[in-house]
Amino acid sequence: MIVSINPKREEREALLKRPTMELETIEAIVKPVMEAVKADGDQALIDFTKKFDGVEITNFEVSSAEIDAAVGLVPEELKAAIRIAKQNIETFHIAQKGEVLKVETMPGVNCYRKSVAIEKVGLYIPGGTAPLFSTVLMLAVPAKIAGCKEIVLCTPPDKNGNVNPAILFTAQLVGVTKIYKVGGAQAIAALTFGTTTIPKVNKIFGPGNQFVTAAKQLSTKYGLAIDMPAGPSEVAVYADETAIPAFVAADLLSQAEHGADSQVVLVASSEEIVNAVQQEVQTQLLALPRADLASKALENSVSIVLENRDQAIDLLNEYGAEHLILCVEKPWEVADQIINAGSVFIGNYTPESAGDYASGTNHTLPTNGYAKMYSGVSLDSYVKKITYQEITKEGLKNLGPVVEIMAEAELLEAHKNAVTLRLKSLNNV
Amino acid sequence: MIVSINPKREEREALLKRPTMELETIEAIVKPVMEAVKADGDQALIDFTKKFDGVEITNFEVSSAEIDAAVGLVPEELKAAIRIAKQNIETFHIAQKGEVLKVETMPGVNCYRKSVAIEKVGLYIPGGTAPLFSTVLMLAVPAKIAGCKEIVLCTPPDKNGNVNPAILFTAQLVGVTKIYKVGGAQAIAALTFGTTTIPKVNKIFGPGNQFVTAAKQLSTKYGLAIDMPAGPSEVAVYADETAIPAFVAADLLSQAEHGADSQVVLVASSEEIVNAVQQEVQTQLLALPRADLASKALENSVSIVLENRDQAIDLLNEYGAEHLILCVEKPWEVADQIINAGSVFIGNYTPESAGDYASGTNHTLPTNGYAKMYSGVSLDSYVKKITYQEITKEGLKNLGPVVEIMAEAELLEAHKNAVTLRLKSLNNV
Repeated sequence: MIVSINPKREEREALLKRPTMELETIEAIVKPVMEAVKADGDQALIDFTKKFDGVEITNFEVSSAEIDAAVGLVPEELKAAIRIAKQNIETFHIAQKGEVLKVETMPGVNCYRKSVAIEKVGLYIPGGTAPLFSTVLMLAVPAKIAGCKEIVLCTPPDKNGNVNPAILFTAQLVGVTKIYKVGGAQAIAALTFGTTTIPKVNKIFGPGNQFVTAAKQLSTKYGLAIDMPAGPSEVAVYADETAIPAFVAADLLSQAEHGADSQVVLVASSEEIVNAVQQEVQTQLLALPRADLASKALENSVSIVLENRDQAIDLLNEYGAEHLILCVEKPWEVADQIINAGSVFIGNYTPESAGDYASGTNHTLPTNGYAKMYSGVSLDSYVKKITYQEITKEGLKNLGPVVEIMAEAELLEAHKNAVTLRLKSLNNV
Repeated sequence: MIVSINPKREEREALLKRPTMELETIEAIVKPVMEAVKADGDQALIDFTKKFDGVEITNFEVSSAEIDAAVGLVPEELKAAIRIAKQNIETFHIAQKGEVLKVETMPGVNCYRKSVAIEKVGLYIPGGTAPLFSTVLMLAVPAKIAGCKEIVLCTPPDKNGNVNPAILFTAQLVGVTKIYKVGGAQAIAALTFGTTTIPKVNKIFGPGNQFVTAAKQLSTKYGLAIDMPAGPSEVAVYADETAIPAFVAADLLSQAEHGADSQVVLVASSEEIVNAVQQEVQTQLLALPRADLASKALENSVSIVLENRDQAIDLLNEYGAEHLILCVEKPWEVADQIINAGSVFIGNYTPESAGDYASGTNHTLPTNGYAKMYSGVSLDSYVKKITYQEITKEGLKNLGPVVEIMAEAELLEAHKNAVTLRLKSLNNV
């Protein structure tokens, strides 16, 4: 860990620099995969799955027999935990539902706004060593609440052509419509163009490696939407003398174990806190199965001592962390001054992992500084907000002259005429 | 206008085909402009403004003297109209403010969501013959309500180095922070990278020609957000025998006058309605100053007769129009079945131009089929929704075991440990 004591303002940018994403070179690799799936559909999926996943699959759709078998394989204790997490995530996301907005802006001029579900969404769940069933919860629960008609899930098969049972259990639990055993850029391509087996969707959600990320980015060029641009996961912890060093260390490590490119930032109000946390990190690291990964991530991470609270808040806003943990006195006072963060964790008993799994908030959050302008995934991500207006005859008499004057000044005579004709007809009655 | 009577389902796609956007070739032209501004800042802006706008400008910032002069030049009648429109847009967008969401998902597990303004936004207002001061209202009013700290506006200068007075009047009226006389891809580049004069922003809003659109798209590769992908403006009108042909014709023409690439679709319940509307279009066209533009747009437009209401709704949802006007019996019944549209106009006395200017709804809407997954600009476009959580000791006792089981099943031991450590400390007390 790099340690910086009271860095000057101009030193910050270098300290907080994130790894650059080289998506363009990866795009060049991914584009032919997209084009092949566009041209050859399912056959291309079969070929790429054989090549990249090392398994021959001819029917990508997970059958109900496979799902039933998976349900039987998941330990009851895990099922119960997933059900509680689902419940909490539902509770928080249902609360995000808005009423239909109705405003009469002028007498007879009625404006409305209503949330309408995106019809078809595609969820991507990575494969690999860790089966990310928690991400199935985070992406499918709000899709279901929003009322999306088709909720399609793609996830890569293992060497035997299977999908992790916990992923299948969770997918059926939350009401995913169809599950397909296909991963990588080819899965994103299938969701982008549709194949005989896999339907084209309107919007793609979910994490993935750099190929998946590049493919998602490319899908936007073909008219799809994606949840948000992606980057390596990150946490910033702000700790003062009220923080418990062992807890802070555990939080830093839980971010670091995600991978060597994870970003970990500790901002502390004194050097003593940094030292105490570092010592705890070393102790806890020894007990971790992913110690190698975590160590690498920690090498790139940084501890910054800032004695002044305003300066610390300023720096945290400049960084705009995906996860921000506040282990400080009066944490809400700090939270109220945070303008850039994906999700904020308040106090010593609120570890990031609570939000990662089960408290109810969504764990799909903006990384790489995108917290400055993007929100995490929420119910909003699955709807469009359509506006409506209905103007009465009386309303048009009130509003029409305003429109006529403005349209004329913008030299749009036909816009004006659409009002003038109607006003004339009203005056003739 | 192409007329199609009861087309088969498989014929629809060809009928409703939108013009393809060839952004890649334009990207190749725009990229060097972006790079030049990135490298040379204000000097590049000076050079491009001389080259593309034919005027030498050394100080891009509009002075308060220029604004004062502009205010004096705008007719009082137009000022009054703009003030009323501003009021209505404010009323509708203020109503979109949400309370801080607070949900206790389990005893002691408190989750929150709060809207926080994006700090710096850039608004682009095109130049050209029509001074789009209405777009200044649509983009700056919600920015101001959201609480964005910097609201920066770029718009190209005319041959004399001036900006249309109505644009300047509106910008100062709604509280734009700074106005710069720079347009085209170079303006987008300035907002993307920042120059000595023009600040880098977090998100760019606004319409523009294909170069501006391509530059906005490129700005996302440099980490910025944009309001939405752009395409030519479009309207669909659904008319039955209760529609008034002259009004429908006026609405089609007000869309067509935007330009030759405007998309105009009429869906009617009978051939008679199409004929009556077409006749009205011919008559009204004669009186329009922009008749040439409108005629060209109408050549590419299509009238579709669908006697069956369900089929018509289905087709309208497949098209997903930016603007949808419903001049039919029981229009709200139809509106409730519309799942894809930017903004819906209900009944014979609700012309699109009302929403374009002054009713209160936003006129920056998704085109090109993007209404299937994007919302128009609203207060949401100017904020991030940050989540927060605070878990009490009791709450962690309730939730902690769930997190431990799930983290272990995902093979993320450090995530588990962040909870285990805390639970142990609570049991030791």
